[in-house]
Amino acid sequence: MCGMTATLVLTAHPGDFVWRAGGAIALATARGQRVVIGCMSFGERGESASLWRQGYTLQQVKDHRRGEAEEAAKTLGAQIRFFDANDYPLVETPELLRGLIDLYREVQPATVLTHAPTDPYNNDHGFAHALALKARVLAQAPGVEGPGGVIGAPPVFCFEPHQPEQCGFLPNVLLDVTEVWETKCAAMRILAAQKHLHTYYTELGSRRGLQAARNSGPNLGLPNDTRAEAYMRIYPQVTRELS
Amino acid sequence: MCGMTATLVLTAHPGDFVWRAGGAIALATARGQRVVIGCMSFGERGESASLWRQGYTLQQVKDHRRGEAEEAAKTLGAQIRFFDANDYPLVETPELLRGLIDLYREVQPATVLTHAPTDPYNNDHGFAHALALKARVLAQAPGVEGPGGVIGAPPVFCFEPHQPEQCGFLPNVLLDVTEVWETKCAAMRILAAQKHLHTYYTELGSRRGLQAARNSGPNLGLPNDTRAEAYMRIYPQVTRELS
Amino acid sequence: MCGMTATLVLTAHPGDFVWRAGGAIALATARGQRVVIGCMSFGERGESASLWRQGYTLQQVKDHRRGEAEEAAKTLGAQIRFFDANDYPLVETPELLRGLIDLYREVQPATVLTHAPTDPYNNDHGFAHALALKARVLAQAPGVEGPGGVIGAPPVFCFEPHQPEQCGFLPNVLLDVTEVWETKCAAMRILAAQKHLHTYYTELGSRRGLQAARNSGPNLGLPNDTRAEAYMRIYPQVTRELS
Amino acid sequence: MCGMTATLVLTAHPGDFVWRAGGAIALATARGQRVVIGCMSFGERGESASLWRQGYTLQQVKDHRRGEAEEAAKTLGAQIRFFDANDYPLVETPELLRGLIDLYREVQPATVLTHAPTDPYNNDHGFAHALALKARVLAQAPGVEGPGGVIGAPPVFCFEPHQPEQCGFLPNVLLDVTEVWETKCAAMRILAAQKHLHTYYTELGSRRGLQAARNSGPNLGLPNDTRAEAYMRIYPQVTRELS
Amino acid sequence: MCGMTATLVLTAHPGDFVWRAGGAIALATARGQRVVIGCMSFGERGESASLWRQGYTLQQVKDHRRGEAEEAAKTLGAQIRFFDANDYPLVETPELLRGLIDLYREVQPATVLTHAPTDPYNNDHGFAHALALKARVLAQAPGVEGPGGVIGAPPVFCFEPHQPEQCGFLPNVLLDVTEVWETKCAAMRILAAQKHLHTYYTELGSRRGLQAARNSGPNLGLPNDTRAEAYMRIYPQVTRELS
Amino acid sequence: MCGMTATLVLTAHPGDFVWRAGGAIALATARGQRVVIGCMSFGERGESASLWRQGYTLQQVKDHRRGEAEEAAKTLGAQIRFFDANDYPLVETPELLRGLIDLYREVQPATVLTHAPTDPYNNDHGFAHALALKARVLAQAPGVEGPGGVIGAPPVFCFEPHQPEQCGFLPNVLLDVTEVWETKCAAMRILAAQKHLHTYYTELGSRRGLQAARNSGPNLGLPNDTRAEAYMRIYPQVTRELS
Repeated sequence: MCGMTATLVLTAHPGDFVWRAGGAIALATARGQRVVIGCMSFGERGESASLWRQGYTLQQVKDHRRGEAEEAAKTLGAQIRFFDANDYPLVETPELLRGLIDLYREVQPATVLTHAPTDPYNNDHGFAHALALKARVLAQAPGVEGPGGVIGAPPVFCFEPHQPEQCGFLPNVLLDVTEVWETKCAAMRILAAQKHLHTYYTELGSRRGLQAARNSGPNLGLPNDTRAEAYMRIYPQVTRELS
Repeated sequence: MCGMTATLVLTAHPGDFVWRAGGAIALATARGQRVVIGCMSFGERGESASLWRQGYTLQQVKDHRRGEAEEAAKTLGAQIRFFDANDYPLVETPELLRGLIDLYREVQPATVLTHAPTDPYNNDHGFAHALALKARVLAQAPGVEGPGGVIGAPPVFCFEPHQPEQCGFLPNVLLDVTEVWETKCAAMRILAAQKHLHTYYTELGSRRGLQAARNSGPNLGLPNDTRAEAYMRIYPQVTRELS
Repeated sequence: MCGMTATLVLTAHPGDFVWRAGGAIALATARGQRVVIGCMSFGERGESASLWRQGYTLQQVKDHRRGEAEEAAKTLGAQIRFFDANDYPLVETPELLRGLIDLYREVQPATVLTHAPTDPYNNDHGFAHALALKARVLAQAPGVEGPGGVIGAPPVFCFEPHQPEQCGFLPNVLLDVTEVWETKCAAMRILAAQKHLHTYYTELGSRRGLQAARNSGPNLGLPNDTRAEAYMRIYPQVTRELS
Repeated sequence: MCGMTATLVLTAHPGDFVWRAGGAIALATARGQRVVIGCMSFGERGESASLWRQGYTLQQVKDHRRGEAEEAAKTLGAQIRFFDANDYPLVETPELLRGLIDLYREVQPATVLTHAPTDPYNNDHGFAHALALKARVLAQAPGVEGPGGVIGAPPVFCFEPHQPEQCGFLPNVLLDVTEVWETKCAAMRILAAQKHLHTYYTELGSRRGLQAARNSGPNLGLPNDTRAEAYMRIYPQVTRELS
Repeated sequence: MCGMTATLVLTAHPGDFVWRAGGAIALATARGQRVVIGCMSFGERGESASLWRQGYTLQQVKDHRRGEAEEAAKTLGAQIRFFDANDYPLVETPELLRGLIDLYREVQPATVLTHAPTDPYNNDHGFAHALALKARVLAQAPGVEGPGGVIGAPPVFCFEPHQPEQCGFLPNVLLDVTEVWETKCAAMRILAAQKHLHTYYTELGSRRGLQAARNSGPNLGLPNDTRAEAYMRIYPQVTRELS
Repeated sequence: MCGMTATLVLTAHPGDFVWRAGGAIALATARGQRVVIGCMSFGERGESASLWRQGYTLQQVKDHRRGEAEEAAKTLGAQIRFFDANDYPLVETPELLRGLIDLYREVQPATVLTHAPTDPYNNDHGFAHALALKARVLAQAPGVEGPGGVIGAPPVFCFEPHQPEQCGFLPNVLLDVTEVWETKCAAMRILAAQKHLHTYYTELGSRRGLQAARNSGPNLGLPNDTRAEAYMRIYPQVTRELS
């Protein structure tokens, strides 16, 4: 039963799941659902500029990013796994692909969150997207070996990149995260290395929230101070009701 | 309360709501919701070739199409209104626009169904789409006069055109209509003038149903013999759950 | 039999059919096929700047453009009709639409040539495209009155606009017009008002010709000095052979 | 000389030029350039909901919006003209088109600002875009009558709509407006009817500013607290330097 | 002479050529043309779920798929080659690329058929597309070593994926395969492992056939019970006649 | 200071920088700016067909192409570096990626020129584009090791491919290169192996020049005999003036 409602979040670097999907994660765990985050790398080269400037060694950078990520995941109520693939550039190795397939089969996700298909400001993001989708399809096939049963066809939602229009990101789902907004803020405060992003994502939450209010039909009727996250659904929505 | 769950279906011609949205309509009425269909024209010139070939007069064509449409709507459990604007080409008149705005405000729809944005095989379809969306926005404004209160922001779903790829139709919603499939078939049988479409839309229902099954996550778990209708959502989905 | 192979060319202004489709027209007439050109306007306001600067009156501009167009059509072996709708802006009138429908039914074209869907440098072009397609669909319907029988579903080819990339023009058909190139040149020489275009379209013929050579499979095997015109097909090609 | 650097801003409603282009206007006037704003309507029906709810008459709404707009324009250092066409829906009349052509020829703009091509939340915006571009092309033609000389080919920049991704808005120009930000804020404060937009556009200025900083090469080297406005260029940039 | 009309079909898995291109293959061989099918893998992991569930070993799966494919190819009158690269995921190896280049040069195809560029339900398909196009370009270059002469520029047609709209598949060619439909059905019956696809592709043949009829000009005049396959042409069509 | 205005040109093969960007290079060096060209390969297999047909060995082909490229670069006033990666297919190696990152950091470019994202006629071009952008992002990160300081965010311009429409090339920048046209012609004359391209690119220079004239506002006011090169900007333009 639990597996039926699990969410799998696959990211290139540790920070991504907080800034871009922290609300969705907190919302799911607040409802008692399992959320597992898989970080392909520690973002040690590409997203740790301030640590390098302080003279950290590679291992120190990794340890620091891991610590932050574990604390943020805990704040959001989620589990986290690290693949420790190299970043900048993130490359596909048989081990990484194998690990992702195994994680899909272990978690049996009902929902998958990952990066948008392209990001001209950070190639790792688009690469992680492709790899997450590739592993999902492979995990569906009985002919692909490994522990655990094959998975179904969980929907995939891309979270919002930093410069959405340049990434071909069309937000076709606006998720109301008002009720867990404080939890997301608490997780964001943990990521001290990227303080300027706090304000940015707080404002983005309001901006997407206002759009959610403006696009919500009479059934939802969201107020203007809604907080929301934007997502792009990859596969068609399958539903029993148009709403 | 009832108005909160009403569906408004706006079409260029009478047949459209049966072939393309009959399942969605039957599904809503089966759940006790109100569905109102607004037909902009009787399709008297553009979609009644067999009647013209039998020597019907213009008025006879209109009467015939009206009769069929009323019976089909009744079968689906829906109400129907006719605007009797000319078709082929359908053109915007102040009366038609006024009538559509008033209908929006009367029905206070929670969901709107209409044509896709373009159809190079039938210009009336794209025109009806534009007019339906225009009237929806106007009906939201307190400054636009007329009876009834302003409406909220109901989501809009475009139903599937006959040659979807040529119409830029990307089906991003697959609606499971299995439970009301027989009702849709009954409504289709009423439209005697276009018999070859029975087979076509029966097969399409299976084809979209199989796609729905292939895209349904573990929560829905649809079987391969599902019957479905495809829709294209225009505005972003606003939701409290990613699924 | 003759009607089965007729070509209908619908343009906003008189010059368009020479620069953009002169090769296709000459190729068809050289094979004994009928070609009828329908000019919606004389291009009197939007494409006759040099005549206005010489002090021509409106009627003189129209007469001059008509004379040129008739001579060019004759050179290409085609018939020409003028609708004398105003240009800049070209607007839809019931008379113009009626005239286009009647022309479709008279000519019973096997092939239709017209402008590309949009042209941000000349709105008349996109408007003429929309009108040509609208009239084509209306001419197919038995319920739309008028002389002549309904038409079939002739393919539509858009000829190349002056700045193709800005017009969303994707050339998916390259027509080898080498054997009638001299005829096209002769027709171009008649349009004295726009001399700078001679060189432009001569070079374009070579450029598209070289592309045709580079895209021609072993069956055609075109040489590098081929002369070609580019077209964009609107509806899917229906064929009995993939080549 | 002055005409060589004039900017023409064409909008559907009075508020648009403040929220969306106030920085560009203030920047131009701060450099001594002429800016003329043409408001097609007073936004009396579609963008004055709070006034209608207070019981204003139509004329009172118009007067109020005119007063606000004149004050905001003055604050930005720009001139303003009103066409008083009806809004919601804004429709093309010969007078409006004529007036726009005449304004182009009077101002002889070196730069044109207007709405993006489509806006599914407000049809007037897309309509105003189309009309602004249509009038620009007509004003270029010697054959189109009216006072003033023909214009050249001024570049056109679309300002940012409220929900950019839903409007197909791809921001390909980020304009640094930091030096005139306070002026824009002062103009925004005048538009009391739409107070919730103050915060929204202040945050948007920071968000676009941060993106400007991230996309600025070494020559500009903008700081992270830059304030910017996003634009979408319609025609290709013509330049003597790649930068 | 024979080589001038040869067709090369390159697929990721053995079933693809039957379901998606069986009509085109049968049509070519019925006209005495040579058709060579190159299967990159046996589809042993990704498209043999029912065999795995029956407990087959890897080699047994491969042997079974090979046997079926050889029989289906024979039924269609075509030759078949197997590259035995691994599937799920299919990856590029120097041997596979080398083999494809050599096959191009041996066959000297006048026409190439392969997968569409992307398929979010099966990454092997998009990968096979990219590889087929890459090998085609390499086979054109005198500087790339290997047996056989360089090839020309054969047109490439993508066959229809299972969920076309999700794969960006725009069917711009509809091939009338009515005369060989029974042959295609016979080949489909051989692929026992995927029985549910029989019905699916039979209905698709009718659906595309009806579209072909609706898009066929007066020269072809196809009846409504036409059977057709849809293709997407990658490179521009080069022709001596617009039809 | 000098580094602030340096241009880095990254190409797959030696000829590319002459045909497609020779004007931009000559324009920059004529203004005293540094231009460095990085050729990933010698184009020995894919773009040296005439040399292979003359019986050159691989080394002779490389030497010949290197000689030509050095002379052309000298004519344009630019420096040139060769990476001697294999072409046809060009593949990513750690050495090549490393070399490109180091070159970015050495040159500290204010402007980057490279290929367009895709080219279905030559896969090396799209590959070089991806690699050039990947190296640029990596060179920005302090965590990526290597000599030299990190770079800023230089704008990237794609030069025009041979068949632009088939490559998704939308020319959004037209660069006036009239003043250095003779220099570009001199460089083109050096590339004797591809003589037919001289005429082609001379005509293209005129064609793009005429488009530049037609798109130039009153400030530039270019004449009709302008010579121009077309570019596609990848990242948004950041500017302090709309023009």
